Amino acid sequence: MGFIEMPQPDAAIVDKREQIVAGLRSIVPGEGVITDPKQLVPYETDAFTAYRRVPLAVVLPETTEQVSALMRFCGAHGVPVIPRGAGTSLAGGAIPQEDAVVIGLSKMRSVVSINYANRTAVVQVGITNLAVSDAVTKDGFFYAPDPSSQLACTIGGNIAMNSGGAHCLKYGVTTNNLLGLKLVLMDGTVVELGGESFDGPGYDLVGLLCGSEGQLGIITEATVRLLPKAEGARPVLFGFETALEAGACVADIIAQGIVPVAMEFMDKPAIDICEGFAKAGYPMDVDALLIIEVEGSEAEMDAMLARIVKIAREHKVKRIKESESAMEAAAIWKGRKSAFGATGRIADYICMDGTIPTGQLPRVLEGIDKIVKSYGLRVANVFHAGDGNLHPLILYNVNDPEERDKAELAGNDVLRLCVEVGGCLTGEHGVGIEKRDLMTDQFNEADLHQQMRVRAVFDRDWLMNPAKVFPLEGRLESSEAA
Amino acid sequence: MGFIEMPQPDAAIVDKREQIVAGLRSIVPGEGVITDPKQLVPYETDAFTAYRRVPLAVVLPETTEQVSALMRFCGAHGVPVIPRGAGTSLAGGAIPQEDAVVIGLSKMRSVVSINYANRTAVVQVGITNLAVSDAVTKDGFFYAPDPSSQLACTIGGNIAMNSGGAHCLKYGVTTNNLLGLKLVLMDGTVVELGGESFDGPGYDLVGLLCGSEGQLGIITEATVRLLPKAEGARPVLFGFETALEAGACVADIIAQGIVPVAMEFMDKPAIDICEGFAKAGYPMDVDALLIIEVEGSEAEMDAMLARIVKIAREHKVKRIKESESAMEAAAIWKGRKSAFGATGRIADYICMDGTIPTGQLPRVLEGIDKIVKSYGLRVANVFHAGDGNLHPLILYNVNDPEERDKAELAGNDVLRLCVEVGGCLTGEHGVGIEKRDLMTDQFNEADLHQQMRVRAVFDRDWLMNPAKVFPLEGRLESSEAA
Repeated sequence: MGFIEMPQPDAAIVDKREQIVAGLRSIVPGEGVITDPKQLVPYETDAFTAYRRVPLAVVLPETTEQVSALMRFCGAHGVPVIPRGAGTSLAGGAIPQEDAVVIGLSKMRSVVSINYANRTAVVQVGITNLAVSDAVTKDGFFYAPDPSSQLACTIGGNIAMNSGGAHCLKYGVTTNNLLGLKLVLMDGTVVELGGESFDGPGYDLVGLLCGSEGQLGIITEATVRLLPKAEGARPVLFGFETALEAGACVADIIAQGIVPVAMEFMDKPAIDICEGFAKAGYPMDVDALLIIEVEGSEAEMDAMLARIVKIAREHKVKRIKESESAMEAAAIWKGRKSAFGATGRIADYICMDGTIPTGQLPRVLEGIDKIVKSYGLRVANVFHAGDGNLHPLILYNVNDPEERDKAELAGNDVLRLCVEVGGCLTGEHGVGIEKRDLMTDQFNEADLHQQMRVRAVFDRDWLMNPAKVFPLEGRLESSEAA
Repeated sequence: MGFIEMPQPDAAIVDKREQIVAGLRSIVPGEGVITDPKQLVPYETDAFTAYRRVPLAVVLPETTEQVSALMRFCGAHGVPVIPRGAGTSLAGGAIPQEDAVVIGLSKMRSVVSINYANRTAVVQVGITNLAVSDAVTKDGFFYAPDPSSQLACTIGGNIAMNSGGAHCLKYGVTTNNLLGLKLVLMDGTVVELGGESFDGPGYDLVGLLCGSEGQLGIITEATVRLLPKAEGARPVLFGFETALEAGACVADIIAQGIVPVAMEFMDKPAIDICEGFAKAGYPMDVDALLIIEVEGSEAEMDAMLARIVKIAREHKVKRIKESESAMEAAAIWKGRKSAFGATGRIADYICMDGTIPTGQLPRVLEGIDKIVKSYGLRVANVFHAGDGNLHPLILYNVNDPEERDKAELAGNDVLRLCVEVGGCLTGEHGVGIEKRDLMTDQFNEADLHQQMRVRAVFDRDWLMNPAKVFPLEGRLESSEAA
């Protein structure tokens, strides 16, 4: 996809390359600075693979002090900085540019402390999402946000994108599970935001940082909430004749104030793809599937399920299937969580990530179908239906330039529909490079300028992850931002 | 209390008084502009009554358009603006100054819309907290944050201070129940932040605004979350021999991951005061009382209570008393919620509002006792123990200047102790005027400067509620902030 314009490397910066690398090496010794072109290849893109650029260098610091020195050095020399966790961004949030230094946090992956009395843990942000839960599972706790990529993605990336996951309907997304941050500003200053208590002092800068896509500074440590594991959990499959009925069922469950721990939607193409891959036992004779997970004691699960079943019957549910063993439950979730990967086996796709008010679900499902059909393409819908976070996968053939363009246009139309019904362009994947130019569909000039002014407080020279989030045109100069 | 320094009114502004009032009247006609000194008296202070100043004028707009015009006018003429809800701030957040215009939101109290499909409501911010729940209670929903002053306090004030309440242990504070805002900036620009969906687009400016104490703009409308009322709820009284045992019991309940809907602590003086006022049936032969409320189905409540009772017994609980009727339950809560008022009947007091990591509860209880005794004063402790939000009431005689000073010094020491153990100066009352000069105990210069730079993005001339939150010394000039 060559359709995205990136700023060209500045010749003067390229000339200064050796000087910059020497400076980096003076801060992080040995193999912590990567400049060999072959070794730089893994860093040229992230999970938004359509787009690639080789960075000037990659640095892998091991301490906050090193990050601080790196930021001070890059800030003083006007070198753009791209923070990187595991590089799983679907929106291009970690894609570098030729004149930039990638600061990779992968070596900073320790659990610093666990405090059960507060139900908090302090972790370095290069730790993977799943490793946080793994560290406390033996004591009956877990870290709630669970992106599908949780085996690989890092807490730092989760914070940058305010990631969610299948179970965030009940437990909230990253911002609801984050209490404190250690943040390195572009001039190397280290500030501590929030802490271990519920109400952080001062402005909610932890909240501001969460979802700021690596543009306000580099976070090195995070204080996260730990939650007790439920007594039991049971995913149940509900198959419907039509996607519309399934969508209306979700809207009714929410409207009645029932909050299952997860409520995932898959349409027919998604069911076919995921069942083919995971053999999860999904019903094949339905047009739409909801995976609804309840948790708690047996009595609690029974009571909530009874209410859900009643609503589902009002929407003519065709199949109901409870998982009867831990293995079945795992297979059900494996199918859902591998949806993106499984789709990749049968077609190229772009994965959209929009959010809508849940009451709009039936209307938006119809709209997506209409939009994608109008471009002569196919769509597989899998998403976190309970909290209105949609992931339509638009299928196309990457080797057909016309179809590629159509897929992109269809995707943009879908996101515009989300905005139109009162939702937004991003759910948990972020804006990154992918949706940068759609921001003007969501925000007017006054909104965008106010955001850019806030951004300028942290990084007035646009050195942090600069090509992302805001459209390249219409950016405030630092004099205006000030 | 004359110990707090306020900026003196600017002579040039006073001379311009007539001109300013004429300008205000051109925007809000008739009785909406108050300038008669007698009528201004109710606006000279809030619930932090030790401190009073009569404002230049009070304006009571009825529409966002009027608020926008008022802000544009005040911004252009350099007139400070004090936003005001119901004036229930315990920290002096709504106290005016002589050169300022109070913009009171009390006439903007409509429910704009209710959307059960999304479980959201849009309200004007002058509506009282309880009126929001009242509007949806017939349909089985409620708005969760419940400050003790909920009958009087407004949603706008709740947002400004990020208010909590007894039940926020389970449901979170204001920021966790707020999805969108209509905000008027100092130059009159109206921006819409967030919306009806879970994940707001762009930076989390809704989060930044929540708790910003009326310094970033005037919020006129809010989109709040509605929650389903629980099937049943049961407050249970647990009386302990010592405050330390009660504190340790709370810490253990949290550490085991049990989340009751509320967990309120009262020490012996607080029990005496509240029981004397409310006849709630609190046990009088114990030194500390926990009001723990569980909710859900009978089976759920029984199951959670059994776990809590087990922990309480490990801490040698002396009395356990379940409420046996709705009337008893109401009396239990009436006692707790009237704690401040009931205390006011027997002594003057200053009400502290600090937050600590819950694991520190036993240590802090001991510390408070030691501090207050060292000043020869008495303290009554009532607080939201479950989420570590403390409200020690330090009792003193307002007519004894020495005792008054001691109470203030003791209060400051208590808040410093909260900071020292990793907590913070404020829970839900805000910094206001009261804790302005303690901010340097919480934050270093780098932290405060970063906050002031963020503030300057919204109001670079310090016109919004200017004398609050940040110490008067060390404020950034707009040139530095820029």
